[in-house]
Amino acid sequence: MKFTCNQQSLSKALNTVSKAVTSRTTIPILKGILLEASNDNTLTLSASDLDLSIEKKIEVSVEEEGSVVVSARLFSDIIRKLPNEDIEIEELENNNIIIRCLSSEFMIVGLPAEEFPNIGEINEEQKISLEKELLKEMIKKTSFAASIDESKGIIVGVLIEMEEDSLNMVALDGFRMAVTRENMKNEENRKIIISARILNEINKIISETEEQKEISVILDEKKAVFLLEDTRIVLRLLEGDFIKYKDILPKENKVKVKVSRTDLLNSIERASLLAKEGKNNLIKLSIFRDKVIITSRSEEGNVKEEVFIEKDGTDLDIGFNSKYILDVLKVVTDSQVVMEFNTSVSPCLIKPVEGNAYEYLVLPVRISTN
Amino acid sequence: MKFTCNQQSLSKALNTVSKAVTSRTTIPILKGILLEASNDNTLTLSASDLDLSIEKKIEVSVEEEGSVVVSARLFSDIIRKLPNEDIEIEELENNNIIIRCLSSEFMIVGLPAEEFPNIGEINEEQKISLEKELLKEMIKKTSFAASIDESKGIIVGVLIEMEEDSLNMVALDGFRMAVTRENMKNEENRKIIISARILNEINKIISETEEQKEISVILDEKKAVFLLEDTRIVLRLLEGDFIKYKDILPKENKVKVKVSRTDLLNSIERASLLAKEGKNNLIKLSIFRDKVIITSRSEEGNVKEEVFIEKDGTDLDIGFNSKYILDVLKVVTDSQVVMEFNTSVSPCLIKPVEGNAYEYLVLPVRISTN
Repeated sequence: MKFTCNQQSLSKALNTVSKAVTSRTTIPILKGILLEASNDNTLTLSASDLDLSIEKKIEVSVEEEGSVVVSARLFSDIIRKLPNEDIEIEELENNNIIIRCLSSEFMIVGLPAEEFPNIGEINEEQKISLEKELLKEMIKKTSFAASIDESKGIIVGVLIEMEEDSLNMVALDGFRMAVTRENMKNEENRKIIISARILNEINKIISETEEQKEISVILDEKKAVFLLEDTRIVLRLLEGDFIKYKDILPKENKVKVKVSRTDLLNSIERASLLAKEGKNNLIKLSIFRDKVIITSRSEEGNVKEEVFIEKDGTDLDIGFNSKYILDVLKVVTDSQVVMEFNTSVSPCLIKPVEGNAYEYLVLPVRISTN
Repeated sequence: MKFTCNQQSLSKALNTVSKAVTSRTTIPILKGILLEASNDNTLTLSASDLDLSIEKKIEVSVEEEGSVVVSARLFSDIIRKLPNEDIEIEELENNNIIIRCLSSEFMIVGLPAEEFPNIGEINEEQKISLEKELLKEMIKKTSFAASIDESKGIIVGVLIEMEEDSLNMVALDGFRMAVTRENMKNEENRKIIISARILNEINKIISETEEQKEISVILDEKKAVFLLEDTRIVLRLLEGDFIKYKDILPKENKVKVKVSRTDLLNSIERASLLAKEGKNNLIKLSIFRDKVIITSRSEEGNVKEEVFIEKDGTDLDIGFNSKYILDVLKVVTDSQVVMEFNTSVSPCLIKPVEGNAYEYLVLPVRISTN
């Protein structure tokens, strides 16, 4: 293998595929990046942690085709620190490679390409096209609510549900649930579950690609492939049945409150400063006439915040872990939101003033009544 | 105590004085900030870790004078998160304080002002005036070389030496030494030693003050006071004799090399990528004809970098911990520097092409000769 390439384009490609390199593995080959130079003057870079694989192609000038695996960390560090000039990369007989650029010359130890896991082909069962900005927003508004506890099974994943007229995403962790919906015609109904961690990585890669507005997603039974520009992201779908989330969403709520999202966000953030003891972040919301009064207390003091509301229903006192309410208010962008309550021990629903683009359910914390 | 003030100005003042609050203390009062409201409509904020004390005055509207100590962390967090509006602060009888701003009301627990350590008066023995930018640069170019090991005694400090025609700063840690000099007329000769950690904090505070160009420094036997705008920084001088650094500086060097600072910096940074094993960062410099060849090797590979030089003297091979050379090349701003050597086991001197504004001494690492 021998090729010449531009430092910037190689460094950018390494940055993208490195997102699939895990530091947690004990398998040396998975700490590597597969370089494949082919006679059509293309270099394909691939990395995989077995759950997530990323492949990116860049234009290079190939003198001799071939392939080798190099340490992701060391190779990326070297390329990033080289000047923005032509870099010549040559494989020696023992998988080692030589990197030359102006007056710099590196020799680094490689591994045989044959040992690299096969990202594999996919049987195209279903193909959908998604608007990039829409996908980014839906992931951002949903994935934070998934469980981060790997022992909790399927709820580390986000449910992506293609229905006749909409695309829905759902995540929950037992304390809160996020549901987002977008109008979209789908030819076939389908439910898939993707790890929230992987969706967040995909969001980072999407954010770095500027040109393309549409992303193609190809599905088969066990895998999904996201195609964008010269990057192919292959990921393993999670297997199992997701919680029947529609059964959890409350049908009817007695108390409805319309409130400024930023006023409520700022007030709860301040109230949380005195809610850090015991890590439960307990705040109390008292819905009283035309206000919500937010209170919290600790050994260090206490706080009272008031925010004006438009109310439909009775007064109510209810306690929350402030983090779960703040998480919602931070990802939503509307100037006003609606909060719905039934009793002080039933979940709160946060939704838009109009439509059903999102619904968030947050479980309350029982508070003493004095 | 009762006063009203602007959120921005209080928040900025808290940010400054908080730099003297240590998290390492077990003495509760030292985690606090002393607030003193006086009838001339001034609020004085003070914090101290006993080695370093910072005092800042801001204009407020005082209704009732008084003083109290509040938790630095909690009080700063609250003020920072309040809107940019008027804030009313009122002390209750039990040292607790009420903070009111629009529809927010906090009560936080305070401590009696009498328990706060007295920053103390200073007997003005000597007063000097320093240009702010000059002081910043000298601290930056020297303090990094001081020892960070508190058990090493006086070398955690920076020697500040006022001589007839110059101001000198010196720091060393046993592996390298930094000497910086500026032309300055001093009426009295004087040597003081200030902890490098405290000098770095002073540099941060200086960087935040924009208006003032000159800083007054008042010295007595045990303390120094830095005066800038409405801020007074009082610090304890370190006691003891500093190393006689002038005896360490080599008088004559056999090999003199003039080199581009950035070329050398970039090459050594790249060579260091393969020098991380065993944490000794070993690189070898081979001064050979009109080049310095930098090499390094590890189990992961090896590297060779070449940088053109202008040389006066013989060829030489010498090993270094690359970190110590990089630290110097990063704080210096000249486009070219001079490196002087004697033998492969004697220290390297780095200095400007012209003048003696700085001299850095770096001990070599013994390398095998094959």
